[in-house]
Amino acid sequence: MSTTTEATPAESAAMQRALLLAARGVRGANPLVGAVVLGVDGRVLGEGYHRGAGTPHAEPAALADARERGNDPRGATMVVTLEPCNHTGRTGPCSEALIEAGMARVVHAADDVNGAAAGGAQRLRAAGIDCVGGLGAAASLELNERWSTALAAGRPFVTLKSAQSLDGRVAAVDGTSQWITGPEARADGHRLRGLADAVLVGSGTVRADDPRLTARDADGVGVTAAPGLRAVMGRTPVPDDAAVRGEGFLHLPTHEVGEALDELYGRGVRHLLVEGGPRIASAFLRAGVVDELFSYVAPLMLGDGAPAYPDLGVGSLADAARWMLDDAGGPGVRQFGADVRLHLRPPSAAQT
Amino acid sequence: MSTTTEATPAESAAMQRALLLAARGVRGANPLVGAVVLGVDGRVLGEGYHRGAGTPHAEPAALADARERGNDPRGATMVVTLEPCNHTGRTGPCSEALIEAGMARVVHAADDVNGAAAGGAQRLRAAGIDCVGGLGAAASLELNERWSTALAAGRPFVTLKSAQSLDGRVAAVDGTSQWITGPEARADGHRLRGLADAVLVGSGTVRADDPRLTARDADGVGVTAAPGLRAVMGRTPVPDDAAVRGEGFLHLPTHEVGEALDELYGRGVRHLLVEGGPRIASAFLRAGVVDELFSYVAPLMLGDGAPAYPDLGVGSLADAARWMLDDAGGPGVRQFGADVRLHLRPPSAAQT
Repeated sequence: MSTTTEATPAESAAMQRALLLAARGVRGANPLVGAVVLGVDGRVLGEGYHRGAGTPHAEPAALADARERGNDPRGATMVVTLEPCNHTGRTGPCSEALIEAGMARVVHAADDVNGAAAGGAQRLRAAGIDCVGGLGAAASLELNERWSTALAAGRPFVTLKSAQSLDGRVAAVDGTSQWITGPEARADGHRLRGLADAVLVGSGTVRADDPRLTARDADGVGVTAAPGLRAVMGRTPVPDDAAVRGEGFLHLPTHEVGEALDELYGRGVRHLLVEGGPRIASAFLRAGVVDELFSYVAPLMLGDGAPAYPDLGVGSLADAARWMLDDAGGPGVRQFGADVRLHLRPPSAAQT
Repeated sequence: MSTTTEATPAESAAMQRALLLAARGVRGANPLVGAVVLGVDGRVLGEGYHRGAGTPHAEPAALADARERGNDPRGATMVVTLEPCNHTGRTGPCSEALIEAGMARVVHAADDVNGAAAGGAQRLRAAGIDCVGGLGAAASLELNERWSTALAAGRPFVTLKSAQSLDGRVAAVDGTSQWITGPEARADGHRLRGLADAVLVGSGTVRADDPRLTARDADGVGVTAAPGLRAVMGRTPVPDDAAVRGEGFLHLPTHEVGEALDELYGRGVRHLLVEGGPRIASAFLRAGVVDELFSYVAPLMLGDGAPAYPDLGVGSLADAARWMLDDAGGPGVRQFGADVRLHLRPPSAAQT
């Protein structure tokens, strides 16, 4: 067997492709990962990416794609944006899948920083598979920077969802807020609920809107059946007849974001969707724990209504964090009916 | 010569195409108009649309396109979304151009409601050309509803431009506002200045930002050399050394939107670009005279900074006008660098 420690030009090209594939995935409990199966002749035999928690990892997806195309992956090279995992979660360890598939070589970008899943390259080498790491590592790390941050901090990955008028209001002067956005945007918001382990709102929102927080209208792609937990944060008691009550309901009687995240993490929540209201949104933003933001903007003006992000503590323009349009899972800017959705991620640590 | 008063299926299809072409144009002093030259055999010989004030009308553009393609328009049918004009403005009368080109028939959608330009169909019939009106008229009228409203009211067509944070703020708490949006969005804003006959800001903006209001960075497409007038509205005196002063400067010492529009219209302004600040923007919105809005949204949050539309007088969500994404001149939602531009038009009168 020939062993090279450097990547070939075909492998470099495949890694660029794998990074593009990775960005098609859905942010959340798991990192974005893409994979390409490269034949001995440099031909692409199959490709895949991870579509979100509960779905196959990128490597098995790429192997399945190769087989569907009638390509035998034996003796081929797996080019993947993250070190293959070595643990059994909702899916089996990728290291074993690659060994069983008879791969000759694995080229990965970033090392796996997830303690429970790490050790994949070591396992592959022990099985006699040629392993090279580091190609495209910077791009892979940048793609999953916020996921790594949440993992290192031992807290859930946090998605913030907000629906507002063009002028940044979540309610009119008289408090009316249903509905600022149209049915298409609201259906997409429900789809987000189905992707997370838990949904969180403030106790003020429960009193104002009495939401059920279920994942109605989800379209089923990469979706868990429903959010496992429906959490209400705040010291105000939740009424006995609140619609949010029932199996999966959790009251977090605290105003501290860190306390709420600790409690949820301890209960196994790895991806949290925060839906507001505005005081909750600002609290999570101030704490610096919002890893992505879906902002639905309706083309209307509410003038002096309730602001989407009160008391943010931003005094000067130079202090405001410039978020970035995020194309993971689809275009960063998209139209939903009459409304516009911005998908944003916080500034990269590398920029600041 | 055969004469039909009803449109043929080929003419109906051509009118649909002409309406799509019309929407590629630029809103402003002139209506959106598209045209298709249809051969005797039903083949499209040429097509065109009006690219904005100072550029050829749709019919000459379509004739020029036909000739460029090597197609002789003699004996052909002109299908156009607005009755051909009969007056000499910055371009000659289209009626004469169609007669000279030897057209056999003209099918138009809406009648020309502009007193000075009307009478085109009459002139064509007098020259022996078969004329049919009304096909696709509703769509054509809807496309130019706000232009017609401005024309009927004897006031300029008003474009409002605004640059704001995601949460609808035009400045941070300490007043800093330069620059909320990035260079690409600002360059596009300068391009808008070049399309209008006049640019207007409030006297407060002059004191705060001391803008020049020139059309720097314009890309030259359908652009007049520079806005003819740079108007400052408000009773506060404009400093002698203000950058906005010089040839083309005009002070409108009033807080009344109607007075300002009358004065500008009297000076020949048919397309006005209003740039703010926020009090001016709200005043024009309250007056119901904003015919289109370009809103540049920067993906950052400014919390409690200056609102983009203060004192709008909207008390309840049901009172807020739902604007519509406007695809005229390009997609209604577009990315400019790190920012997003929404191009919006007010609700159609037909909706309310």
